[in-house]
Amino acid sequence: MVWYQKEIRLEARKRGFHVVTSEVENHLPELKSIKKGILHLFIKHTSASLTINENVSPDVRSDMEKHFNKMIPENMPYYDHNLEGSDDMPAHIKASVLGSSLTIPITNGELNLGTWQGIYLCEHRNNGGSRKLVATIFGETM
Amino acid sequence: MVWYQKEIRLEARKRGFHVVTSEVENHLPELKSIKKGILHLFIKHTSASLTINENVSPDVRSDMEKHFNKMIPENMPYYDHNLEGSDDMPAHIKASVLGSSLTIPITNGELNLGTWQGIYLCEHRNNGGSRKLVATIFGETM
Amino acid sequence: MVWYQKEIRLEARKRGFHVVTSEVENHLPELKSIKKGILHLFIKHTSASLTINENVSPDVRSDMEKHFNKMIPENMPYYDHNLEGSDDMPAHIKASVLGSSLTIPITNGELNLGTWQGIYLCEHRNNGGSRKLVATIFGETM
Repeated sequence: MVWYQKEIRLEARKRGFHVVTSEVENHLPELKSIKKGILHLFIKHTSASLTINENVSPDVRSDMEKHFNKMIPENMPYYDHNLEGSDDMPAHIKASVLGSSLTIPITNGELNLGTWQGIYLCEHRNNGGSRKLVATIFGETM
Repeated sequence: MVWYQKEIRLEARKRGFHVVTSEVENHLPELKSIKKGILHLFIKHTSASLTINENVSPDVRSDMEKHFNKMIPENMPYYDHNLEGSDDMPAHIKASVLGSSLTIPITNGELNLGTWQGIYLCEHRNNGGSRKLVATIFGETM
Repeated sequence: MVWYQKEIRLEARKRGFHVVTSEVENHLPELKSIKKGILHLFIKHTSASLTINENVSPDVRSDMEKHFNKMIPENMPYYDHNLEGSDDMPAHIKASVLGSSLTIPITNGELNLGTWQGIYLCEHRNNGGSRKLVATIFGETM
């Protein structure tokens, strides 16, 4: 049984949904030593989030951005938390709907994702900047 | 400390929300050996999801299906990802709103769920077929 | 490697979103002994939920309550599950959208949250009463 834990930084991205599987894996060569285990990813922000979704079609990502903007719009008349810009309060709501962490099984040194699954960074701010994650890997070694 | 990990297949179900607690438990006799631990379930698909909800009333499940179809409808004019059918893009969005994994405490050989809690398979496609899960059990043995 | 697991009770709160980070930490002095690990929190109810969000502004919490009530309203004509009050079926849907568990990294004896992150209890019932959580802490000791 081993534990690895480190803080990693994802590159700044524009508002929207982005596949970051390779960027995350490149930060985590420790994955290769795990026979059976779990990768836990936690984003240390309240206006960006993590999810798993389709890893090929850019249309899925842009459709998700459009639909989340309809389901959780800017400038609702009942928002009182407006000081940080019209994108801020919707960003907080989206972050809770999508979630701030992921847990992914590790099997024989690799993330055990389905064929069409990728890790998404969901950037809900217009200018969110680089985002910090805590990655925790735990499991049995090879 | 022990680790068990296996892929399991849930039977095909029609579109909607389904209680699958017993089906999952029947695949996992290893639960009985764990004194304190965690069951991690991960669905290897992007158009079906897992959640915890009310385990008795069929009306809760059908009301959830109806409300998710209202909140995330088919045929929105701004969807560009339409090639795989009108149920496909909403299925991806629902999958991210509900989530692709569950973590449930194990206590004295049993899932430590509340009285009214069950594991739901949320099938978002009209014909999703059988769904693959990765189950990872880790914890202290009895 | 150590495992701690206990059931804790959060004080009853009115319907809405509430920061409970300190209340949770006060129940878990065991956190201080963990060098690298995970805190898993699981709520044993289907009409209340847990999330991570902004820990300072009361407006964020009340805006979230207002927006969730718009996104998942009471008294929709298609709800069949109405016996337990008009707040009940929306509470079940909100619980699945937000989720019944949290996993938070522990680093050097403390929850490794971002500066602005706190643990929210999301109480979806008008009179939900005290809520039970199962807290599981696992990791390497100092």
